[in-house]
Amino acid sequence: MRLPKGFLASGVRAGIRKQRPDVALIVAEKGANAAAIFTKNRFQAAPVVLSKNDLKSSGGRLRAVVINAGCANAITGREGLAAARRVRDRAAELVGCPRQEVLVSSTGVIGVVLPDAKVRAVLPDALSRLSASGVDAASHAILTTDVGPKVAQATFRIGKRRGRVVGMAKGAGMIHPNMATMLAFVMTDAGATPAFLKSALLEAADESFHAISVDGDTSTNDTVLLMASGMLGNEPLSSKEDGANLRRALTDVCRELAWRIVRDGEGALRVMEITVKGAASEREAKAAAHAVATSPLVKTALHGGDPNWGRILAAIGRSGARVATKRVSLQVGGLTLVGSGMPAAYRERQAARLFQKERVPIVVDLGVGNATATKLSCDFGHDYVSINADYRT
Amino acid sequence: MRLPKGFLASGVRAGIRKQRPDVALIVAEKGANAAAIFTKNRFQAAPVVLSKNDLKSSGGRLRAVVINAGCANAITGREGLAAARRVRDRAAELVGCPRQEVLVSSTGVIGVVLPDAKVRAVLPDALSRLSASGVDAASHAILTTDVGPKVAQATFRIGKRRGRVVGMAKGAGMIHPNMATMLAFVMTDAGATPAFLKSALLEAADESFHAISVDGDTSTNDTVLLMASGMLGNEPLSSKEDGANLRRALTDVCRELAWRIVRDGEGALRVMEITVKGAASEREAKAAAHAVATSPLVKTALHGGDPNWGRILAAIGRSGARVATKRVSLQVGGLTLVGSGMPAAYRERQAARLFQKERVPIVVDLGVGNATATKLSCDFGHDYVSINADYRT
Repeated sequence: MRLPKGFLASGVRAGIRKQRPDVALIVAEKGANAAAIFTKNRFQAAPVVLSKNDLKSSGGRLRAVVINAGCANAITGREGLAAARRVRDRAAELVGCPRQEVLVSSTGVIGVVLPDAKVRAVLPDALSRLSASGVDAASHAILTTDVGPKVAQATFRIGKRRGRVVGMAKGAGMIHPNMATMLAFVMTDAGATPAFLKSALLEAADESFHAISVDGDTSTNDTVLLMASGMLGNEPLSSKEDGANLRRALTDVCRELAWRIVRDGEGALRVMEITVKGAASEREAKAAAHAVATSPLVKTALHGGDPNWGRILAAIGRSGARVATKRVSLQVGGLTLVGSGMPAAYRERQAARLFQKERVPIVVDLGVGNATATKLSCDFGHDYVSINADYRT
Repeated sequence: MRLPKGFLASGVRAGIRKQRPDVALIVAEKGANAAAIFTKNRFQAAPVVLSKNDLKSSGGRLRAVVINAGCANAITGREGLAAARRVRDRAAELVGCPRQEVLVSSTGVIGVVLPDAKVRAVLPDALSRLSASGVDAASHAILTTDVGPKVAQATFRIGKRRGRVVGMAKGAGMIHPNMATMLAFVMTDAGATPAFLKSALLEAADESFHAISVDGDTSTNDTVLLMASGMLGNEPLSSKEDGANLRRALTDVCRELAWRIVRDGEGALRVMEITVKGAASEREAKAAAHAVATSPLVKTALHGGDPNWGRILAAIGRSGARVATKRVSLQVGGLTLVGSGMPAAYRERQAARLFQKERVPIVVDLGVGNATATKLSCDFGHDYVSINADYRT
């Protein structure tokens, strides 16, 4: 896949992870405007602390992004911050830009200071390998326990100009209930102000990454970055009303990446799309959907393809959301399993078939109000335990 | 184990579960004063709805308890309630007491109406098998996926009288983060008013069952019941200041049962005791401890005996609790792994040894205030997935 005009990327091996590419480099040839969403975890990793600050002081301008896998450089104090700075400074020197125009991002084990010498040593090689089709190599180099790379693209029109959006992401170990790090880097050739990008990114994240995580429910390193090179030559988009087409393409790319992250959950066989409607408030709808999406009992039943809807309602019942127990209903793939608060007449076999598909859409109506929320969640299988019981060994 | 004076119990097979005893009966020969804590789940099972109401109208008097495993009789509407009533009424008839003096309790699959005819059919047999040592048979008959029965006892003195407390419990599929049903039935020969019993039970639960669940984080059927036969002949305890010895014995029994429930988590190898101190408020201390105790990433690392403290702090970081990131510390079994917000100098091997014990005590100091909370949690292994992926098949 080719990057939007103005961007180059590469992926190389620095030896932080064994036998795998582990450093990705993205360069905006003539710079880019940018906006980012960072983790709300109280323990923000060194690269997050640094990059948040730099992005602010550069006024939303970026020239390069250095991402490493294998070491999160989180909860590493002053030493960790110094290591992140050395990577940033070396990249700025090689690319030839102010250091606050380099964003650094890390994922991997917490509590280990980034072996920054290894990263710095491969930066010249990463620079020499930069190419417009380098997103493939880069998307491999940011993975940890992901099954495979996650890349998505979309096109849009601004007047007669045809622009592109390309994104790559690193999935979470398991997204719910406490995701391992989620990273996403999205690029477009459109011209747009940092403020426009921020608003468009928040809007797109709401319908994508926020449906798989939950406000605040983030790892130490989570970062979603949007960059716009302006090479399309359009009048830079600046107001919220502008660029509906770009915003739609951006949302499509983010949704596709989010879906792939969930589908790629460790050992996962399927994705449950849980929609809660009829809630008293949006907050309660979200709490109910979150309780279902994060319930290990629901997720293991989903793994077994078992239509055990009792666990779904039990999770909602303890979520704090108000429920009209005599009006509640539950459907899977259009088949009603519960109506008016009681088991409906359905064939167990038909229900099982619907729970054994790759995509399991569940709708629960709480029967109280009009608020709705949707969350995506994967199932929970043996591989999840295997991978996470000895992640560091 | 013998029951306290005034109580008899038995366990029989009704055929709700295959090849296993599944109905337990407890009878207080001359009646008992009682107090109970019921689930806060919005979907309260039929037996909970019924028993809550009956206990109120009997003014806290009980003669018999009928417990069945294999069917939770939850989310079963009017039919479920009628089935629970028929079991209650038949037991009252056989024992010869007002029907509101019979408490019914169920655990098992949600969404299936209790096959009450099966339960009623074995009640005469259960009655004929009642004995003072019947707690063993009864404690087997209330289990679902539990590895084994959970019984605990303690003694206490009131003046020169030596009293006893005996309890039995049914563990949760996995206690955290959303427990399957937890049931506990505790009996004493002391004399005490229902109000005294309620206050003593709440106090004991706070240090035991509430350390493994969390307010509101309960299944559709959770019930903790305390009964006092008064056969000890003491002046009935009535004020909160009374009966410190009984209260202590009760707390000991509840703590022992809670520990066994956690230790018995499906496929669990160890129990983590997570204490959060230095929090800004008790609410925040609890939220932080809860986030750790329910984190699948922490629980799988614990299963592998992996001292991956980064996951513990990452969970606290997203819990909403305020943290002084530069002052935070973490210890396991007295060994400091993190001090002043940075990895401490420790031997990986020593840390691993401490994480591989049956009991893993972890203390995290948030460095903000003076509030403290402790939670118990088990690890998360392959058996958990196996058992829960096909629980109903």
